[in-house]
Amino acid sequence: MDAILETPALLLDEARMQRNIARMQGRMDQLGVAFRPHVKTSKCLEVARRQLAAGARGITVSTLKEAEEFFGAGIDDILYAVAIVPNKLNHALKLIRAGLRLTLLVESSAMAQQLAAHGAEHGVCYEALIEIDTDGHRSGVKPDDPVLLEIAAALNGGAHLKGVMTHAGASYDLNTPEALAAMAEQERARCVAAATRLRAAGHACPVVSVGSTPTALSAAHLEDVTEVRAGVYVFFDMVMVDVGVCRVDEVAISVLCTVIGHQQDKGWIITDGGWMAMSRDLGHDHHGYGMVCDADGQPLPELGFGKANQEHGVLQWRGAPDVSVAQRYPVGTSLRVLPNHACATAAQHGQYHVIPQNGGDWQVWPRFSGW
Amino acid sequence: MDAILETPALLLDEARMQRNIARMQGRMDQLGVAFRPHVKTSKCLEVARRQLAAGARGITVSTLKEAEEFFGAGIDDILYAVAIVPNKLNHALKLIRAGLRLTLLVESSAMAQQLAAHGAEHGVCYEALIEIDTDGHRSGVKPDDPVLLEIAAALNGGAHLKGVMTHAGASYDLNTPEALAAMAEQERARCVAAATRLRAAGHACPVVSVGSTPTALSAAHLEDVTEVRAGVYVFFDMVMVDVGVCRVDEVAISVLCTVIGHQQDKGWIITDGGWMAMSRDLGHDHHGYGMVCDADGQPLPELGFGKANQEHGVLQWRGAPDVSVAQRYPVGTSLRVLPNHACATAAQHGQYHVIPQNGGDWQVWPRFSGW
Repeated sequence: MDAILETPALLLDEARMQRNIARMQGRMDQLGVAFRPHVKTSKCLEVARRQLAAGARGITVSTLKEAEEFFGAGIDDILYAVAIVPNKLNHALKLIRAGLRLTLLVESSAMAQQLAAHGAEHGVCYEALIEIDTDGHRSGVKPDDPVLLEIAAALNGGAHLKGVMTHAGASYDLNTPEALAAMAEQERARCVAAATRLRAAGHACPVVSVGSTPTALSAAHLEDVTEVRAGVYVFFDMVMVDVGVCRVDEVAISVLCTVIGHQQDKGWIITDGGWMAMSRDLGHDHHGYGMVCDADGQPLPELGFGKANQEHGVLQWRGAPDVSVAQRYPVGTSLRVLPNHACATAAQHGQYHVIPQNGGDWQVWPRFSGW
Repeated sequence: MDAILETPALLLDEARMQRNIARMQGRMDQLGVAFRPHVKTSKCLEVARRQLAAGARGITVSTLKEAEEFFGAGIDDILYAVAIVPNKLNHALKLIRAGLRLTLLVESSAMAQQLAAHGAEHGVCYEALIEIDTDGHRSGVKPDDPVLLEIAAALNGGAHLKGVMTHAGASYDLNTPEALAAMAEQERARCVAAATRLRAAGHACPVVSVGSTPTALSAAHLEDVTEVRAGVYVFFDMVMVDVGVCRVDEVAISVLCTVIGHQQDKGWIITDGGWMAMSRDLGHDHHGYGMVCDADGQPLPELGFGKANQEHGVLQWRGAPDVSVAQRYPVGTSLRVLPNHACATAAQHGQYHVIPQNGGDWQVWPRFSGW
């Protein structure tokens, strides 16, 4: 492998990814909801195409850059799932005028008013969801907050209330099936409650959008939900292993690196995969900068990854420090590291090197970044 | 400002950067050593050109991608300061054959042998430095290690020993002028000791290269050192503020972000500058994800930045949580955040937005990434 690729390099196991896609889509089909994958994880057209081919309806993005890139490739139903602010309105307007069915997100009366005014001024009607806070984790309006109805009322003229959306990010901190199922039900019930309140006030509110990878894989039912969003499931990572929604051998991306030196007296193996290749994301702080594996992707529990500089990884051999660390892992040895957080690690790279199946050739799938 | 730029965006204060460049180059001139800036911090030709214009001789890079990009722009004296491994030799060879004066780094006999063999096989003589460990921080051979002379002996035929190189990365963990000056002297003395040993064994060893931003700014003298390398000084960051080698008002880059919402009951201000814009680098864990400032760059000590998701920053108002947080920082408010680690934060962005001076226009300076 090291004769082919310069390291560090981001590897993608396409077979694992396809199984992850099939598993999530199959679950959504069973639960009877539309699935709108969050493409912030991959930022890669080849990946999104496979999610859509499996049955996804539209995509979710975290930046207008993603909206622009994927729309440019022909995907025309996109939810931008970060609350809109004034400096992005002209960009959103440009995309909508070019034909994109773009749904925006609001979580304040002030912004709902500005959105409606901007739409009226420019002769468009923005489709908007209201962000609902169902877990106290981050953003959004609580289902029983009076502000909910104020926002809905402000969305008229140049903006139209399409529904409600929530993301139970707090699920990332759970790790039992019972707690995850309870969080999934809380996410569902509170988002549905917000929709019910809006409908009682006379708003149509056709969309009820929920989701995170852990809750999507843990929900017992999704009654009254119309769509689910999830992102990281497509690759999975060590955080998702810790949460308990995947196995280590389902993690589909890894960083290939090479041993460049040793500090034998400390039992250290130095590699060319530092934090620039892994990101600084330590996940739940259980695996250092990631889980170290051999060149074939088999975990090597004897190696920790507790320290990283920009282009240097420092692996700690858990055995007694002596000369044998350099004998076991000589300079030039290829290793692979499973990431803590797939979204963060993939973002450090400009392409996926897709591992050949059945003796085929390596493919390179580009990914983009930025705003 | 928010009418011009979509957020998040990486801002560069060119005047501060020029002062940082002049300060470091002036110091190196006083100490009588050549200066070879590490361009891994900026990965930007416009920045490197200003460092060279100020008097730098050659550049240091952390990847062969950097070597290729800067050589393509006409910079032909480059030190690649990460130990070379077999999978990168053909790339290095290609650059050398195209005319680049590329210096490589080795820290093991095995790699020195492979380097010499590869050079002999392809009819080139690789110029190499031996990495010296002067602080126990990461890589390199200790000055008194027998391996030092083995490596030097192996560098013959297709490779040539040009000198020794060290980086006292441990200086980042210090924070008094006395400790920094002592570390600078340790870095100098141990690297010179390695050169002295090599010369006593009959090797010419013309280059003695040392450096890190903290030691370069703290050395009392640099006797027998021929060149210094430093990178982060060009922008500085909150880690360097903590180390004590710069002031907050010398930090030249910041991330512009916008308030997108609030959680008034918690005193939270949500922005569109999350970890994708800041990186996950927490520095010395004193400033959360960075120091929050107003739109003009004045620090706002009343706001912490303890929590970040991919495209959401969560700022904590240190006052009593109530409605006034949304009144003080309404949706649409522009804020700037000074990074913990300039190398990590800049790497999350594809360009620098250069703040206009004297009423001029905004400039955009591209930066690259990857390997």
